[in-house]
Amino acid sequence: MTMITHLDVQDIRFPTSRSLDGSDAMNAAPDYSATYVTLHTDTSDGLVGNGLTFTIGRGNEICVKAVQSLAYLIEGRNLEAITSDMGTFWRHLTSGDSQLRWTGPEKGAIHLATAAIVNAIWDLWAKSEQKPVWKLLVDMSPEQLVNCLDFRFVTDALTPQEALAILRRKVSGKASREQKMCEQGYPAYTTSAGWLGYSVDKVRRLAREALAEGWTHFKQKVGGDLNEDCQRAQILREEIGWDRTLMMDANQMWDVDEAIANMRQLAEFDPLWIEEPTSPDDILGHAAIRQRLGSIGVATGEHCHNRVMFKQLLQAEAIDYCQLDAARLGGLNEVIIVLLMAAKFGVPVCPHAGGVGLCEYVQHISMFDYIAVSGSLDGRILEYVDHLHEHFENPVLIRNGRYQVPMAPGYSITMHPESLSRHVYPDGQAWKEK
Amino acid sequence: MTMITHLDVQDIRFPTSRSLDGSDAMNAAPDYSATYVTLHTDTSDGLVGNGLTFTIGRGNEICVKAVQSLAYLIEGRNLEAITSDMGTFWRHLTSGDSQLRWTGPEKGAIHLATAAIVNAIWDLWAKSEQKPVWKLLVDMSPEQLVNCLDFRFVTDALTPQEALAILRRKVSGKASREQKMCEQGYPAYTTSAGWLGYSVDKVRRLAREALAEGWTHFKQKVGGDLNEDCQRAQILREEIGWDRTLMMDANQMWDVDEAIANMRQLAEFDPLWIEEPTSPDDILGHAAIRQRLGSIGVATGEHCHNRVMFKQLLQAEAIDYCQLDAARLGGLNEVIIVLLMAAKFGVPVCPHAGGVGLCEYVQHISMFDYIAVSGSLDGRILEYVDHLHEHFENPVLIRNGRYQVPMAPGYSITMHPESLSRHVYPDGQAWKEK
Repeated sequence: MTMITHLDVQDIRFPTSRSLDGSDAMNAAPDYSATYVTLHTDTSDGLVGNGLTFTIGRGNEICVKAVQSLAYLIEGRNLEAITSDMGTFWRHLTSGDSQLRWTGPEKGAIHLATAAIVNAIWDLWAKSEQKPVWKLLVDMSPEQLVNCLDFRFVTDALTPQEALAILRRKVSGKASREQKMCEQGYPAYTTSAGWLGYSVDKVRRLAREALAEGWTHFKQKVGGDLNEDCQRAQILREEIGWDRTLMMDANQMWDVDEAIANMRQLAEFDPLWIEEPTSPDDILGHAAIRQRLGSIGVATGEHCHNRVMFKQLLQAEAIDYCQLDAARLGGLNEVIIVLLMAAKFGVPVCPHAGGVGLCEYVQHISMFDYIAVSGSLDGRILEYVDHLHEHFENPVLIRNGRYQVPMAPGYSITMHPESLSRHVYPDGQAWKEK
Repeated sequence: MTMITHLDVQDIRFPTSRSLDGSDAMNAAPDYSATYVTLHTDTSDGLVGNGLTFTIGRGNEICVKAVQSLAYLIEGRNLEAITSDMGTFWRHLTSGDSQLRWTGPEKGAIHLATAAIVNAIWDLWAKSEQKPVWKLLVDMSPEQLVNCLDFRFVTDALTPQEALAILRRKVSGKASREQKMCEQGYPAYTTSAGWLGYSVDKVRRLAREALAEGWTHFKQKVGGDLNEDCQRAQILREEIGWDRTLMMDANQMWDVDEAIANMRQLAEFDPLWIEEPTSPDDILGHAAIRQRLGSIGVATGEHCHNRVMFKQLLQAEAIDYCQLDAARLGGLNEVIIVLLMAAKFGVPVCPHAGGVGLCEYVQHISMFDYIAVSGSLDGRILEYVDHLHEHFENPVLIRNGRYQVPMAPGYSITMHPESLSRHVYPDGQAWKEK
């Protein structure tokens, strides 16, 4: 038996606002940050599990506080007792303390904290099984997977029986899809050239570099001045041509009618999708935008806080692409529910990534989705941003615009001790230099 | 000019779980709590503003932390600069720091903290004008009121022009409705007899007491064991008869299909509404329940976190009663937007109350709604719970089942110093006694 003896949480921040990496219309100057959880155990080999929630700087201290408040629910528990009944554990963590639940429920700081803890459990479990998380999942039977899930509030869209049926349909072919994934990797797109805070020259230079690296899908930020949005779209199309794919991301800057009007102008640059055109809570707004825009796909999800919201985005036919976030949803258990609902409704999942650690997380999710849930790469493309990977013990590996399959045990989210100590806020060395 | 020199925040908790006051199916043992904000000013008479966010115990520390993170956005600012352009101020507080916004946006701990601060500003403003908040609002012109609002993300349902038109239509008649309100008060209902943790005998005794006090509308908690729910409904109907009104509240315990099945059984007790039948995020779920139940009204809102969610509940025709919460929405500015949308869609607003301080808040909201927004009492009834009022300097006053008009300046939310010191967590005397 493996007892979780203690939970440690650290406030880790990277001063990315100094270079405007990651700038967009809503988030002008983010400092990519992590609420970083370490689960210590009583094993003789010092097994630990790590998980993180991503924030963009200030506010990380609120998530740290929320993790501290939740910690008592897992300290002293046995890993095997948790993993043998993961669905019940997840319900316990999200609803077992109704006083804590009140501050959400299942949204905001308390749910971000839940994500960090739940993902740390998965990291611990996978490391104890000596498997990467995607492989741990792929090797489970449909029954074992469904046993990890809490279907509360989604049974009108997906019952446990339907989830089982979806997974069983993909049991045959798993081995060949796993082999194909190991050989070819998972297709990705880059946002590196498209940040709003970058100059025209920088956009052009970065686009050329990305082309040279083999990228075929490019995302740009919009939602600032419309003329400038058009100007950068023009530059990107000049550089990437019209056979490659351009996506646009408004980061919630617009009201519903505004989104429709602006995208009608930006339509001339033939975007595959408009991402976060309006409030992430506006299910019916996204549905209206999708219906009225017609040929431009609607994508959202990085701020979609739980399975109930995704259920409705799917029921309302509001999205063409489901961009779930590995650390905004309440960890991998809730992510799997969304993968299953998306498969049922026939919507491709293209997880949100970037930030710090999100690329490391989502490769496991998309590979599992391909091998065991949707069985398809149609319309799937995984976000990639080339930031901050050097801080991870097992960083993502990209070749020719594709994520290579991670083979190290765990959820790829463990950071180097020296990265942690250097970026701990506010006392780390990175925050003392200006 | 009045400068806000400093924000203080206190973690105030009442050990209500010891008597199961406030118990329901989701929240078995709440300790009613407040994240209590005091805005200090540089005025010679020591003017302060107070606001609180309500939680049910653990987790209050997360909201306190969030208030501390937001404090820098108002410390050092002038009250007059804020109140002369309240809409811009509200946008500044909710979106001015995009790093903090990320942890919501506009939901969870960061939005609960926003409510406490925004309401403290309104308390300060009203006190500086020597008016109760409802009267401050009623005396504003439609233009001044609309200037207090941020319409971001709701213009597809309510434009500033439409808001102006709604308010202008009710300008005539304001004086007579104000007079009527002062004479008669605002109709209320009681939940005091209906808590889930109470024994059958206690329910019967409390129902008789409430009848003797003149109550005509009674709410019971459901969502536990269905037979026990029926049993308590039976007792309540025996006591109150069939001419008085019974409402039911499931506190989010059911999935959509479950809510419909259970309410078809509870329909024999002729409930006016079923409150929180399922997840508060499930707009389409509430719409389905409403459509399939037919004659039983659907009510929700105490966990509805922002105006975008209420907009959709109205657009989807998902609710018969809008139960906004004064401290879950981002303070009074956002509450007013919801009042206006509800007026446009013709849905009565029956605010959530109880807890600690919520009755004190909502009397201002409903009286303003009646006098200046909806102009109607049809279908309106304000929640009342007889808990913890003794801790407030100007507690609500109930006569014959009606809220009497508060006349003291401010938002009625200032607590006695000795109540604060006794209940500050964890060091107050109330937490040292067991």
